[in-house]
Amino acid sequence: MRATTFRPRGSATGAVSIGCPPTAASSPSCPVASLGVTDRPSTPALLVELDTFDANLAAMGARHPGPALRTHVKAFKSTAMAARVAAAGHPTFCCATIREVEGMAAAGLGEDLLLANEVLDARRLGAVADAGARVTVAVDSEETVRAAADGGVREVLVDVNVGLPRCGCDPGDAGRIADLARAARLEVRGVMGYEGHVVGLEDRAARLAGVEAAMELLLAAHADVGGDVVSAGGTGTWDINTWATEIQAGSFLLMDTAYGQLDLPFRQALFVLGRVISVNRAQGYAVADVGLKSLGMDHGNPTIDGHRVWFCSDEHVTFAPSGDTDLPAVGDLVRVVPAHVDPTVARHERFTVARGDDVVDEWPVDLRHW
Amino acid sequence: MRATTFRPRGSATGAVSIGCPPTAASSPSCPVASLGVTDRPSTPALLVELDTFDANLAAMGARHPGPALRTHVKAFKSTAMAARVAAAGHPTFCCATIREVEGMAAAGLGEDLLLANEVLDARRLGAVADAGARVTVAVDSEETVRAAADGGVREVLVDVNVGLPRCGCDPGDAGRIADLARAARLEVRGVMGYEGHVVGLEDRAARLAGVEAAMELLLAAHADVGGDVVSAGGTGTWDINTWATEIQAGSFLLMDTAYGQLDLPFRQALFVLGRVISVNRAQGYAVADVGLKSLGMDHGNPTIDGHRVWFCSDEHVTFAPSGDTDLPAVGDLVRVVPAHVDPTVARHERFTVARGDDVVDEWPVDLRHW
Repeated sequence: MRATTFRPRGSATGAVSIGCPPTAASSPSCPVASLGVTDRPSTPALLVELDTFDANLAAMGARHPGPALRTHVKAFKSTAMAARVAAAGHPTFCCATIREVEGMAAAGLGEDLLLANEVLDARRLGAVADAGARVTVAVDSEETVRAAADGGVREVLVDVNVGLPRCGCDPGDAGRIADLARAARLEVRGVMGYEGHVVGLEDRAARLAGVEAAMELLLAAHADVGGDVVSAGGTGTWDINTWATEIQAGSFLLMDTAYGQLDLPFRQALFVLGRVISVNRAQGYAVADVGLKSLGMDHGNPTIDGHRVWFCSDEHVTFAPSGDTDLPAVGDLVRVVPAHVDPTVARHERFTVARGDDVVDEWPVDLRHW
Repeated sequence: MRATTFRPRGSATGAVSIGCPPTAASSPSCPVASLGVTDRPSTPALLVELDTFDANLAAMGARHPGPALRTHVKAFKSTAMAARVAAAGHPTFCCATIREVEGMAAAGLGEDLLLANEVLDARRLGAVADAGARVTVAVDSEETVRAAADGGVREVLVDVNVGLPRCGCDPGDAGRIADLARAARLEVRGVMGYEGHVVGLEDRAARLAGVEAAMELLLAAHADVGGDVVSAGGTGTWDINTWATEIQAGSFLLMDTAYGQLDLPFRQALFVLGRVISVNRAQGYAVADVGLKSLGMDHGNPTIDGHRVWFCSDEHVTFAPSGDTDLPAVGDLVRVVPAHVDPTVARHERFTVARGDDVVDEWPVDLRHW
């Protein structure tokens, strides 16, 4: 903890209310009451509410059945969770790292894996393809085309910059990249282009206009590239992006406070479960054992329903009741809602999966690192 | 990546210049040139410059010899790194989690381990003590005293709130907590109190005044508590806190951009090594494979020497040259300096340890999680 993070910042604005209030852990209706079953649950823990997760998946699947949803593994990094998505009829997946591709294939989820990212050493990907999985990698330059060919990958998508200043070639250069790939005997399946610069816009009309402009660029590139695939989209544009042939979305399964501020039908299914370890009655705050080491902080502080979060340090969150909420007691469980799901999950070894009052499963976060 | 993180924010202000420029990976004088020895280094990777690390340790040790430095393991979470600190004559350590205590003891570094944090289930700590390590835990309430006693821990420090709104009892209550502990047959070694609310103040005079006020509170509590230990301080107050009997510091070994802005003699020894995977010449930016999953972002964006960082997403950093720096090329290595060391290290499996041009060791980050 440094002074620069000390000043109370952030607030409960945007808090997602779900399940029992943080201090009602002893209530029989509270889904965390029996976590750990016979004993105190170990904290901090990643808690997934399975019914909410399933409802989120069903809502997405109703709009994008089968491979029209290419679920993005980076949001949850768990083959057990991916298997549940596949069992719901969505066998195609998107990955952000080579290790995600390797782990998915090893878990028997290699029917159609897209590494939606550029790599300069594709040999590990080639080995996965040689072992029988279908592996496609994004390319946006001569170097990445050469890496794909040298590494033994057989299929690529041309990654097109549609407005987000990140990877992706200029739309006008996409045809040339495709030609380079075909000259290197790579199969060009089509294009991808992520409209990440507009996916989080809170105003729906602005989001729609932004997506339309981005997809015009992508479709123009697609006309030069060919192939069947136009891969784009994300949780924030799940029902707006009507141009893509497949939607790359992952956060909708678990959600976070950032996406919780948009007009989406997906509900918060993920919490970092903590325990109150210290209470200051004179100053009216409590401290729980959920901190920077168990959260992704790039979108700011987490929220706690009914409370205002003051700040986080390595292993702590300091927070105070707002409104009518009582100050928690030492030992109470508390549900912390992360601001950004993907980098939060990547800090943990496992999900604790709950249904109602019961822990029903544990899913390893087995696709971490690189 | 959401639109909210898209807007270029942060700058190269505060960048720490060390070693080769990010684009000079092929230079023979560049300490990252031969990383991976025979092949491309795997990126992202945590790179430690051993000579700088050793110099930082020596500078701290000259001021705080032996157990006057109680090195905080939470900053680096590695028993191999801790062993190097112990070999330099500092056998006492501070931990923030039970797993850190367990791992240190298992590695033979259990001469004097302080868990400078409150826990409500101390049985794992009791087991470590039973196995022969010296384990002391912080207590600040009846509940945490009872947990220590019930868990089989034999020694405690009374944690005192000296101004940071986090754990710690009111200074006026410290004597009562000590009495409770002694009544529970716990040995009370003294007090601890972290002046985290002032440790990062850039103005040295303000920092000094803040530390003095905090330590007055701690010494008053110590008078009521007794014992030999007054444990406090951190990297930012390493030479200012003259009241504590031991300094709890860890960040000084590796450093980060936040501490780099203070008037400290410690130099940047840690980098996240990445590789440029995409370049946009028309817009003048590059993208490297270092993102939110390999950085702690609570103190904001990382820096890259000679460049301005625009934003980070899960597996990417987008950045552009500033001043006379050239735009990097696809394949170049880049050294990213994290804004906050502790939560950055906790995202990685290992340190790659370099001396000059050579990789000399690999140290597992083996004390992660809880």
